[in-house]
Amino acid sequence: MPRTAHRRRDRRNSHTSEPSTITGVRREIPTYDLMRAEGLELIEAHSERLLSEIGVKFIDDPEALRLWRDAGADVAGDRVRFPPGLLHSLLKTAPKLFHQHARNPARTIELGGNNVVFAPAYGMPFVSDLDNGRRYGTIRDFENLTKLVYASPWLHHSGGTTCEPTDLPVNKRHLDMVYAHLKWSDKPFMGSVTAPERAADSIEMARIVFGRDFVEKNCVIMGNINMNSPLVFDHAMSGAIRTYAAAGQCPVIVPFVLGGATAPVSMIAAVTQAYSEVLVGCALAQLVRPGAPVIFGNFVTSVDLRSGSPSFGTPESALASYVAGQLARRVGLPVRCSGAFTSSKLPDAQAMMESVTALHASVLSGANFVLQSAGWLEGALTLSYEKLVMDADYLGAMHRFLKGLPVEEDAFAMDAFSEVGPGGHFFGCAHTMRNYETAFYEAELSDTQAFETWSDQGGTDMARRANRKWKEQLRTYEPPLLDEGIDDGLRDFMARKKEQLPDNWH
Amino acid sequence: MPRTAHRRRDRRNSHTSEPSTITGVRREIPTYDLMRAEGLELIEAHSERLLSEIGVKFIDDPEALRLWRDAGADVAGDRVRFPPGLLHSLLKTAPKLFHQHARNPARTIELGGNNVVFAPAYGMPFVSDLDNGRRYGTIRDFENLTKLVYASPWLHHSGGTTCEPTDLPVNKRHLDMVYAHLKWSDKPFMGSVTAPERAADSIEMARIVFGRDFVEKNCVIMGNINMNSPLVFDHAMSGAIRTYAAAGQCPVIVPFVLGGATAPVSMIAAVTQAYSEVLVGCALAQLVRPGAPVIFGNFVTSVDLRSGSPSFGTPESALASYVAGQLARRVGLPVRCSGAFTSSKLPDAQAMMESVTALHASVLSGANFVLQSAGWLEGALTLSYEKLVMDADYLGAMHRFLKGLPVEEDAFAMDAFSEVGPGGHFFGCAHTMRNYETAFYEAELSDTQAFETWSDQGGTDMARRANRKWKEQLRTYEPPLLDEGIDDGLRDFMARKKEQLPDNWH
Repeated sequence: MPRTAHRRRDRRNSHTSEPSTITGVRREIPTYDLMRAEGLELIEAHSERLLSEIGVKFIDDPEALRLWRDAGADVAGDRVRFPPGLLHSLLKTAPKLFHQHARNPARTIELGGNNVVFAPAYGMPFVSDLDNGRRYGTIRDFENLTKLVYASPWLHHSGGTTCEPTDLPVNKRHLDMVYAHLKWSDKPFMGSVTAPERAADSIEMARIVFGRDFVEKNCVIMGNINMNSPLVFDHAMSGAIRTYAAAGQCPVIVPFVLGGATAPVSMIAAVTQAYSEVLVGCALAQLVRPGAPVIFGNFVTSVDLRSGSPSFGTPESALASYVAGQLARRVGLPVRCSGAFTSSKLPDAQAMMESVTALHASVLSGANFVLQSAGWLEGALTLSYEKLVMDADYLGAMHRFLKGLPVEEDAFAMDAFSEVGPGGHFFGCAHTMRNYETAFYEAELSDTQAFETWSDQGGTDMARRANRKWKEQLRTYEPPLLDEGIDDGLRDFMARKKEQLPDNWH
Repeated sequence: MPRTAHRRRDRRNSHTSEPSTITGVRREIPTYDLMRAEGLELIEAHSERLLSEIGVKFIDDPEALRLWRDAGADVAGDRVRFPPGLLHSLLKTAPKLFHQHARNPARTIELGGNNVVFAPAYGMPFVSDLDNGRRYGTIRDFENLTKLVYASPWLHHSGGTTCEPTDLPVNKRHLDMVYAHLKWSDKPFMGSVTAPERAADSIEMARIVFGRDFVEKNCVIMGNINMNSPLVFDHAMSGAIRTYAAAGQCPVIVPFVLGGATAPVSMIAAVTQAYSEVLVGCALAQLVRPGAPVIFGNFVTSVDLRSGSPSFGTPESALASYVAGQLARRVGLPVRCSGAFTSSKLPDAQAMMESVTALHASVLSGANFVLQSAGWLEGALTLSYEKLVMDADYLGAMHRFLKGLPVEEDAFAMDAFSEVGPGGHFFGCAHTMRNYETAFYEAELSDTQAFETWSDQGGTDMARRANRKWKEQLRTYEPPLLDEGIDDGLRDFMARKKEQLPDNWH
């Protein structure tokens, strides 16, 4: 258990404004299985061909090449080809189900099975809000966003690089990001992956909070590994996989598959490629440390062949999500799937049209870890404050959706029909009074009022209401407790690390 | 066949701007079956209890009561109770699959099975656009909207009361609406249901176009029957069902089920009620004329218990859609399900968030007829010009979605992987050049451009782009051909009917 990270809780318990604890949500509805078994078998067979005939490159990572050679792969230069069956055999040691511990034990999550965990957007260089428009992200933005994610009951995970703090040196900002996750939130989080030594720093900071022994035996930090598709791991990415896996921490292996650009223009081929790439990444983690937790990631969309830019929330990518979910279940690994994706530059109709399309597919595909589920705009270039809270509100609706429709006897309300009869009204009947408080999810940012009332109140659109909401959430934010000794330990570590290296700005 | 309605086509074929013909779309992906058989059986069993113990009222319709008495139902006053099994037995004569003929035979649709037909919003008293805001609909709006629906390749059906032409007398506007559908479009359409004589007028106008004999033997018009839930048919609604069915035309039976208001606050009970009500309406049509085409309608959502207004695009109503689809398939009737629903007053993020939620559930539930699939705002009070074209664009995406991911050998693109290899780019490879034109749906109103390009072009949101689009569509609209003799016949009929009655304004 985390030793003292949350030690002061009891003393101040009566006057904290800590958000309610929902540690993931269990999916109680079936997955949507788009493709029949024969189709999935064809994908698997073509994947074996791709892996054995074309193979994958590992750039500047002799250690990875050595591991593959020892495992029986065919290594020629930096190209690795995999005999059929090798990867599936290696993946047998990967856990189907594992916990990522949070420094507040009440927020520890379980990954795999029917669990669904929502995490915010990741990797955006820009931020935007309605007042100040779009600009480069700063550490101040990063802290704000971490606080907003902490405040939402529907986001179970603090994420990682929610925005890039571009006002800090490239080679040091990971320290401030990890610190912000640990200081301003007590939800589980992700560390740096941009270089193996930054991954190591992230894990070291987790050790300060959770204790070295605890971290050796438990997953407390994830790293999101974006591959260099098609079929390449550069040394930063394969190095980060090795660093996380060696520490028993969880790399999330995510191909970056854009049909027509980094993958063939056919979605089936793109899915086959993504499947192949993710198997390689997950198996590498097992070579480093058998039993290391890994997540089977999925990121498959297409380029808009008019603009040359990626498009998001498309029907093709929704179909790909369903198939990816099925493939992951056949491998038996926890799966990450698409989030609230959009190409839109604004929190407008396009943004939510595309985001809901992608998110629905993710949820029904059986995703266990939905990174990018809140805040994303502009094809991952911009984190919108307004979209963050809009998406979070929608994730609340998804919590309700995942619960399905239970069919216990009271739900049939036969007493209400007897009481009300034909032509009556159910508003005040006994069954309604008994159940109304929990009957429906109340989407806070959706206006259902009469036109006149809405108009009298300013006739706002959803983005404007979201603007009010995030400001209110920042105004009322109270940090979770963090032991002062631990806080000092983290600050000392950061200070030492920052002194050791000159600032690097690119 | 329609005799002469489309007679002039050949002569002018070379220079018409007629939109491409897509007569519905076939679903090639599986339905999403949310509920297990045991749950569905529980709903069916509770429905039998509801129908036999509580029953349904038929207000001021002695003919309907006579039909039910003769069929073996228990009729006491205006209350009808149904012995278990009676309705299912009557429904055996209803067709599982039928055509609705369009005056242009190339636009005739098939209903039932795996067919999906999209139709626009229905019943809105207000219209809105970005330039002029919200105001009462007029016949000019009605004509515009009919033209916009005609212009979209993704809307297969012209709909019915797309907006209320409130500048025309209540007892005569149905004539002008039916005329507009026949004059400005050649897609299938719906007639009036607000009184049996207006339903009869609508059918009579169809006879002028299609010929009396043809109409006797074929479905050429639908009527959308909104029930007075809970458990009531007023004489206008049951009269309209009888009128359409007697003429061999198709009533769409749609409960109006709002959990917490016109139904219990539990979604399972609301679904059970809706299921029961729709069985009664469909069976009444079979009593009038065995074999009459009917559509099993579904409209289940909830009231927002804060505002007292209906809420749309909720997780609960999405769940209800899936179950309704399953129940309809067990009965074996073509099913209408939810469309692009929202409570929003603007074509904003809320509007598309809710609409996509409802529409996805409709499509995956196996809906055959998706009325309300374009233009809806404000809980069916407002038809938005912008939302109409935004939704239509999204329906194009749904066409692509419904096609799934075929797994033929070329789709695996093995030649592309050989050509490109690890680290390459697929943009110009042979497989891409062979397939790029048909690979992806191109959403016309979704901007995927780089921020700078988008910004230089005005930094528009989706609603603004939609505003440009509908104006362009009206500017370039060309009417489909209509035989002059038929046109004269329709005008004569309308003039005679209008002379027979004084104007009625409420």
